[in-house]
Amino acid sequence: MAMENVKQFVFVLSAAAAVGFVCIVFVLRWVLYFREGLAWDGGAAEFNWHPVLIVTGFIFLQGIAIVVYRLPWTWSCSKLMMKLIHAGLNLLAFVFAVISLVAVFDFHNAAKIPNMYSLHSWVGLSAVILYALQILLGIGVYLIPITPVSIRAAFMPIHVYSGLFIFTSVVATALMGITEKLIFSLKDPAYKNSPPEATFVNVLGILIVIFGALILWIATRTSWKRPSDQVLHTLHTNGGGEANSKVGPTMSQLSGGGDTEAFGDVRRRSSKLDDQVD
Amino acid sequence: MAMENVKQFVFVLSAAAAVGFVCIVFVLRWVLYFREGLAWDGGAAEFNWHPVLIVTGFIFLQGIAIVVYRLPWTWSCSKLMMKLIHAGLNLLAFVFAVISLVAVFDFHNAAKIPNMYSLHSWVGLSAVILYALQILLGIGVYLIPITPVSIRAAFMPIHVYSGLFIFTSVVATALMGITEKLIFSLKDPAYKNSPPEATFVNVLGILIVIFGALILWIATRTSWKRPSDQVLHTLHTNGGGEANSKVGPTMSQLSGGGDTEAFGDVRRRSSKLDDQVD
Repeated sequence: MAMENVKQFVFVLSAAAAVGFVCIVFVLRWVLYFREGLAWDGGAAEFNWHPVLIVTGFIFLQGIAIVVYRLPWTWSCSKLMMKLIHAGLNLLAFVFAVISLVAVFDFHNAAKIPNMYSLHSWVGLSAVILYALQILLGIGVYLIPITPVSIRAAFMPIHVYSGLFIFTSVVATALMGITEKLIFSLKDPAYKNSPPEATFVNVLGILIVIFGALILWIATRTSWKRPSDQVLHTLHTNGGGEANSKVGPTMSQLSGGGDTEAFGDVRRRSSKLDDQVD
Repeated sequence: MAMENVKQFVFVLSAAAAVGFVCIVFVLRWVLYFREGLAWDGGAAEFNWHPVLIVTGFIFLQGIAIVVYRLPWTWSCSKLMMKLIHAGLNLLAFVFAVISLVAVFDFHNAAKIPNMYSLHSWVGLSAVILYALQILLGIGVYLIPITPVSIRAAFMPIHVYSGLFIFTSVVATALMGITEKLIFSLKDPAYKNSPPEATFVNVLGILIVIFGALILWIATRTSWKRPSDQVLHTLHTNGGGEANSKVGPTMSQLSGGGDTEAFGDVRRRSSKLDDQVD
């Protein structure tokens, strides 16, 4: 990655981290200042763990987990270590999501409110189930050493797409959750009269959208990928579905130089197929 | 594109078209059977144009506009004609979106309900404004003949990303809109008691998410791109931000053959930079 490109990356990453951090501050101020605070008592203060854990874990931590391979200063670390960090952050985000579900089910049961009636709950629970499946399949395909390289390569476009799809679904679910909660809890003045809490939490919703947009921008910039993963992408671009027959030309293009420093031009690096998909 | 690849494309495209069609049927059944029908009278039947026009125009038509370059049977058409179809479908979707906004503002004003207080309205109006900007910039950059090729190439990643971002935001806004409308209009039994309308419209929400997911899958499969556009993608993949200095090797890789039939292997086609970004 050229230095100019690294500067742009660091700028967008810093913006994402800053917006994500402000989201966490906003959700904490929402529940601590405007609402009933945090507790584990079956009441409204237990419900409040739901937005706090979703924003902190299922949105912020998952977002960071998605872009962790992009950090140029990790490109000298082993791929295995980066995969463990990626998996670890996603597992942590999953734990946050599960505890946040327990909080809202507990609250509903104590208050005799039905569970799973809303579109928010349908999309949200689907996202959590798909996330569990994504983590299990990710571990099985990319962390269990015996999985063949051909399966790893074939599954990568699905792994990447479903990761971004789940993340986007979580952001959309959070927007529905904010909408529901403001309608249900603001009564006098109501949501439609725009009391300070309504405006404040709408801004939180906009900030969550901006955080999501920045993470998706980072994740989809091919030139910001970890060098060995850029190679895989080029291979997919040129090879389409029939990888085996078309590896040849791409590989020969890539093996022109022996330059292996971490920030080198990808086309000058020698590279093995193994390294691109493990 | 290999025949196997074409079959997969047609299968996913047919699924998207079918799901999109069912979404339109569902939104019509919602307003005609469960709600007050359609009229332009300042009342609830005028509001009902809002979901109908959003699902038909801002979601279905925009989704089709996004994937129109992917249809293999259009690859023998001129790029200019495809660009006019892409722009025309997006303009039509924009007109639908604007009329749907007029319907909801009319309804709010007649019923003395404030405008623009909800997160739904904030994200939704932002999406409409960004969509107008996207269309204007798209016309200026890709349809006005004098725009230099260098600007067309540099702007393409932004045009693609913001198009998919706006489409995704519209889907998320629709989910918030469904949530709001079901809470406001279902009173006895309420949304939380899952009357038939609630379940029916939740299913519509899930179908909209599936339609969005299929469009995003089609739009992000590099091997499904129009052949001359695949070349551009390869160029971006290899060239990163500094296209000029890196065009050389990619171009020489591409000009190895003079085979120009519409379904040929992209790497065997001779191609000019002009053709890739116009």
